[in-house]
Amino acid sequence: MRGAESDLIDRFLRHLGAVRTDVLLGIGDDAAILRLAPGFDVVQTTDALVEQVHFLPGSPARSLGHRALAVNLSDLAAMGASPAWALLSLTLPAIDEHWLAEFAAGFGTLAREHGVALVGGNLSRGPLTATVLLSGQVPEGTALRRSGGRAGDEVWVSGTLGDSALGRPRTPGTSGAPGAQEASAADAAWLRARHEFPTPRVALGAALRGVASACIDLSDGLLADLPRLAEASGCGAELDIECLPLSAAARRAGGVEAWREALAGGEDYELCFTAPPGRAAEVAAVAERVAVPVRRCGFLRAGSGVELRRGDAVIEFSQLPFDHFASGPA
Amino acid sequence: MRGAESDLIDRFLRHLGAVRTDVLLGIGDDAAILRLAPGFDVVQTTDALVEQVHFLPGSPARSLGHRALAVNLSDLAAMGASPAWALLSLTLPAIDEHWLAEFAAGFGTLAREHGVALVGGNLSRGPLTATVLLSGQVPEGTALRRSGGRAGDEVWVSGTLGDSALGRPRTPGTSGAPGAQEASAADAAWLRARHEFPTPRVALGAALRGVASACIDLSDGLLADLPRLAEASGCGAELDIECLPLSAAARRAGGVEAWREALAGGEDYELCFTAPPGRAAEVAAVAERVAVPVRRCGFLRAGSGVELRRGDAVIEFSQLPFDHFASGPA
Repeated sequence: MRGAESDLIDRFLRHLGAVRTDVLLGIGDDAAILRLAPGFDVVQTTDALVEQVHFLPGSPARSLGHRALAVNLSDLAAMGASPAWALLSLTLPAIDEHWLAEFAAGFGTLAREHGVALVGGNLSRGPLTATVLLSGQVPEGTALRRSGGRAGDEVWVSGTLGDSALGRPRTPGTSGAPGAQEASAADAAWLRARHEFPTPRVALGAALRGVASACIDLSDGLLADLPRLAEASGCGAELDIECLPLSAAARRAGGVEAWREALAGGEDYELCFTAPPGRAAEVAAVAERVAVPVRRCGFLRAGSGVELRRGDAVIEFSQLPFDHFASGPA
Repeated sequence: MRGAESDLIDRFLRHLGAVRTDVLLGIGDDAAILRLAPGFDVVQTTDALVEQVHFLPGSPARSLGHRALAVNLSDLAAMGASPAWALLSLTLPAIDEHWLAEFAAGFGTLAREHGVALVGGNLSRGPLTATVLLSGQVPEGTALRRSGGRAGDEVWVSGTLGDSALGRPRTPGTSGAPGAQEASAADAAWLRARHEFPTPRVALGAALRGVASACIDLSDGLLADLPRLAEASGCGAELDIECLPLSAAARRAGGVEAWREALAGGEDYELCFTAPPGRAAEVAAVAERVAVPVRRCGFLRAGSGVELRRGDAVIEFSQLPFDHFASGPA
């Protein structure tokens, strides 16, 4: 792809995303030159989408462009950072201009929405993979971390959980989640959109600086990610599954599986964060200001591990789903 | 690889490379937190190595770890930047701990040599691919660019050209470069090492700030990369092939093919840069100080395109090789 690479980068990737005055030199040289504002730290992350691993062959290119950036935006959101500069490394089995245009549209729309400039691009022939490297900035010393939680802090989550897993396309030949086949077309489309076009909680993360004690993004599911936050904070945690935020569509379409997907389905790209109980009103006010719903669903405690509760009863994940959950908690 | 990912990152990637005090938070959270020195710009690049495209199956993992970082170091060298922070996204068809340890050793040795800390890592299952994001820093406004050359500026190259292409393993069943089979074992091993463990010219690039007018790294071969510099500078160029720096091993092992590989073989990772004729002594002094040989081999001129010359005669690349080149210019 050597010869065609710079032509394709010119046509599809150069000038993608926002125009930023701190980009002194963008795509087209050996590297980009970027000017950080004084008094800010740089925050950097990378994540890759690989065909057959993170998405099925034939997935819509516009969704892949969106998701490739969204998963990285979600990482920066968890640090409370403002995203700024992205580099994109794409490997493609063949040059498909329609596919590239669609991918660029998905990536570019989300990038502009978050003020992100694409400052570096790389195209290779190879198995379909999109790797994004995203840098953001945060006022010195104010980034959120997983490790700031203390025993007694309350555990909060943003948005609703499990939608993405319920909207995930199934490998042909395998069955969907129980109940999925009964989902209304409107619910199915809404859940599918939650999967294909997840909403990284960038404004919420930034607004939580100085309020949240610790934060992590939910990529592998609450039951995998909360233990990471708790362990980094030197704590255990209790989680009340009655308090998990489930969308009406997830409850209707997922039935009893909705709770399982909310805990372990993954790819929610919501934030899970902690704050001392005395700051609950402040958390609610911050969430209101950025118009993202948040809900308390547990707390950190001394020890290790995450215990699931339903009210006063300790339960095991393997006991899920309870059949009376279908019409369960709001 | 979800479950095993953080364990493998802990064992093979965390703490890889140099220890830097400007890394406030490295691998292990959602993103890294980095503090840029005041008065510096950030320089960022990304490059990927993909199996079957950039290397053959079975290539030594230690070499791949070295090359994955070296190709990015070479990009920063061309900007005159000092490398600082790397993120690595690896996709592997299966977990092979010996392979990972070798890859990490190759990457880590070169990273420590250049003061680079690995601050982010990502492992996925998938076709073997290594993508690196590298950030460096450069005093504000001093980065080298491709676009600074002017008609009359002399064209210089570092090191020797064509070694890497002559040392590149051939796909089984294809023949090597003419003459390669007659290479002595010592020459073959030296050329192979130039391919497997290229030397990015980081110190030279930094030393050329304020001296060179434009710079590019030689990844696709002088005949592909010099036109990019010339075009970005709004010029054409003339190149005297009698002045190309060829190693003794390349001339002995490559025979008449050595000149062709020096022009178009690629993967040299040397620097090609320009400077006004009046600064030639300064260029020589800078090169002497960092102990990297450099050679003048042409100049920029008004117009466009790159013209090959042998002394006073204009020649075409297709006329190469000339048989009297085997014992040709020094």
